[in-house]
Amino acid sequence: VSGLAERLSRVVGRAHVLEDEQLTAAFERDFTGRFAGRASAVVRPGSVAEVREVLRLCAEAGVAVVPQGGHSGLVGGGTPRDGELVLSLRRLDRIEELDEDAAQVTVGAGVILENLQAHVRERGFDFAVDHAGRGSATLGGMAATNAGGPYAVRYGSMRAQVAGVEAVLADGRVVSRLSGLLKDNAGFDLTGLLVGSEGTLAVIARLRLRLVPLLPARVTALAAVPDLERGLELLRRLRAEAPSLQAVDYFHAHGLRRVCERHGLPLPFRADADVYLVVECAARRDPSDELAAVAELATETAVADDERGRAALWAYRELQNETLTALGVPHKLDVSVPVARVPVFERDVEAAVARLTPGAELFLYGHLGDGNVHVNVVGPPLDDQRIDEAVLRLVAGHGGSISAEHGVGLAKTEWLSLSRTPDEIAIMRDLKRALDPQNLLNPRRVLG
Amino acid sequence: VSGLAERLSRVVGRAHVLEDEQLTAAFERDFTGRFAGRASAVVRPGSVAEVREVLRLCAEAGVAVVPQGGHSGLVGGGTPRDGELVLSLRRLDRIEELDEDAAQVTVGAGVILENLQAHVRERGFDFAVDHAGRGSATLGGMAATNAGGPYAVRYGSMRAQVAGVEAVLADGRVVSRLSGLLKDNAGFDLTGLLVGSEGTLAVIARLRLRLVPLLPARVTALAAVPDLERGLELLRRLRAEAPSLQAVDYFHAHGLRRVCERHGLPLPFRADADVYLVVECAARRDPSDELAAVAELATETAVADDERGRAALWAYRELQNETLTALGVPHKLDVSVPVARVPVFERDVEAAVARLTPGAELFLYGHLGDGNVHVNVVGPPLDDQRIDEAVLRLVAGHGGSISAEHGVGLAKTEWLSLSRTPDEIAIMRDLKRALDPQNLLNPRRVLG
Repeated sequence: VSGLAERLSRVVGRAHVLEDEQLTAAFERDFTGRFAGRASAVVRPGSVAEVREVLRLCAEAGVAVVPQGGHSGLVGGGTPRDGELVLSLRRLDRIEELDEDAAQVTVGAGVILENLQAHVRERGFDFAVDHAGRGSATLGGMAATNAGGPYAVRYGSMRAQVAGVEAVLADGRVVSRLSGLLKDNAGFDLTGLLVGSEGTLAVIARLRLRLVPLLPARVTALAAVPDLERGLELLRRLRAEAPSLQAVDYFHAHGLRRVCERHGLPLPFRADADVYLVVECAARRDPSDELAAVAELATETAVADDERGRAALWAYRELQNETLTALGVPHKLDVSVPVARVPVFERDVEAAVARLTPGAELFLYGHLGDGNVHVNVVGPPLDDQRIDEAVLRLVAGHGGSISAEHGVGLAKTEWLSLSRTPDEIAIMRDLKRALDPQNLLNPRRVLG
Repeated sequence: VSGLAERLSRVVGRAHVLEDEQLTAAFERDFTGRFAGRASAVVRPGSVAEVREVLRLCAEAGVAVVPQGGHSGLVGGGTPRDGELVLSLRRLDRIEELDEDAAQVTVGAGVILENLQAHVRERGFDFAVDHAGRGSATLGGMAATNAGGPYAVRYGSMRAQVAGVEAVLADGRVVSRLSGLLKDNAGFDLTGLLVGSEGTLAVIARLRLRLVPLLPARVTALAAVPDLERGLELLRRLRAEAPSLQAVDYFHAHGLRRVCERHGLPLPFRADADVYLVVECAARRDPSDELAAVAELATETAVADDERGRAALWAYRELQNETLTALGVPHKLDVSVPVARVPVFERDVEAAVARLTPGAELFLYGHLGDGNVHVNVVGPPLDDQRIDEAVLRLVAGHGGSISAEHGVGLAKTEWLSLSRTPDEIAIMRDLKRALDPQNLLNPRRVLG
């Protein structure tokens, strides 16, 4: 690689080709510690032209490339495994024009979500996708993995926010769709294909993003319901009655107790219930009256419309992950099933986990509005592989996805065939071969 | 083809393989009369399995196939040209399960929009895309062409509504994504790639569609503004202040006068203005107060919240097409530019048309919220080719799309390079070759 490093240095500058282990370390191990591997080098281009030139040189040398954004992914999609070159997009961190007529903004792939949020909120806009990794996740990485989060029930995931990309293929060819056209039927939707392809088809270098209005009046309700069936009934009502609905998250009694114990929080309600929903509406003016169904269908309800009160209600949901992680090394799966199947899927998972690891604690929570269930198992020494297999087979049996939000990366390639037919996998391989015949971009990710 | 016809008859039944010219005629000439050609046969499968078998037999015989829905397209995408086999999807007209938990419905590709609308509205839902062709356009065709319409400013075009498809490739392989998962990051977005690919990559046979709540309170405002710049100012205000905003259409004074003359309608306002906007909001309860900006920024305004009054206001916009068509054979172009560029684009078009065809009448109208301009030229014998070239070059110069809504089909292949870079066209060709190496599905459409 050293001849290549020399040539790369001439493109991006010597300071931006890292080979010293003390500097490359942060790019070589993901923040969970689950994925790690050596990179032959870390290259940090400062412009799209440099990205292009770097990819051309790598293709010439036949060197595999792992594109990396904020390095906050959970499936090993952005961490090197054995000697790939890491292409860090972090220096492409410029927020460009905010187009108020189109309600869009152009950003470099390395812009961090939190920075975009601050920028657009000052100007009366908001960005529709938000999630706990906002302090590190980049917009490029979020697009590459089609990031979701709690507000997808209102606005959709990243794919719905990306009006266009500037992206570079392995051979240096460029897809350049940054005009922000809201209607454009001149040929195939290359942008949509690249979003969610996890860096295997092209490197997203710049993005044109849709914005939504900043909605000042937010109301959050924590609602106890006897079971998930009642939760679904409430969801149906809210979909019909609450256009300002933006989140319907849920968790269970066990998770609630654990969170309250660990954080010294009061239980929110007098009586126990099996299921707790966090319902949120946001509008220009107080949307409380759209939440009538919550009071009607819940056994107990707490409502807040101020920042502190809302955060206190969200905390019961948001502290689930931190709490269960503190109890032991968790085994985590992020899956989705058709919304109507969530109750029966959960019962099947409970039975399977009880059978496989008696005594384990099971935390199930997620985004009910999307059928997105986060399955977490904590407890006695776990056979990760057997739990994965059992849960993911149940997912497949219910017509679900083995990856709702996090992507496939390296972590889930062996299970891909549970969610996709042999025809679909063959078609994806055809597409990969068409755009990256040398298999240089994020090899072995997604398709194995 | 006769041996093939025999084999196809065994698949779909003899009654569904049409070769008699009296029966095939309707499938061979589009409703505008602009595109026509002989089909070697018209085959009408009744199930996805039959679609698959038909495509397999055609691939075996090396016979090209033109998929056809309601045959209401405007760019020759669904009309045979020289001896292709027409695959009519119209018999796949079953509306299947309406899933209230997910707010989705599964339909056959041959379901007509109007029928879907009636079906879901009875059940408290609505379908987000609507357009004048609702009585003939099929959902399959609308997905294949990524149909848009006036409500795209709120809900997006078809791509945003299609949660999944069942589609058959030229070689009989099947993409089957009908679970309606709202979050699914297990591999590439094949559904999104097929939507808008105009039947060149696969035949969409069934669809899983997102539904929106049926919103009973609708308010429509007709607003006169001095110029498009003021129109854009109003659009910005509405984007920020009116979450219930669902349409911002526009037309000009000349079109208004022509409509009023032809239909004996009163002019809506006392004074003349250059630009007229149709602004519509819809919500569960009266959204009138979200329209404050209209009264502030318009010189005159008419508002209606009842069905008849709203239709009367929309008529000024909707009768533009019929009116100009009655004046002579129009030359029509459907393009988009970045929203902020609409005013300068229109001035450029006016100058170009005046130069090329002095004395012609120019009708410009469209969906301002999407930057979607319908350019219509009526008048003295027109040199279509020169007008096309002049207007589409202006579109390209402003970073626009040569096709906003209608697609590329046969009509616009020669102009594709104005909206897509050589790299992008090469990439699209790579994708086409990967999925249809024999070039049997809708050959020459889109990519020429």
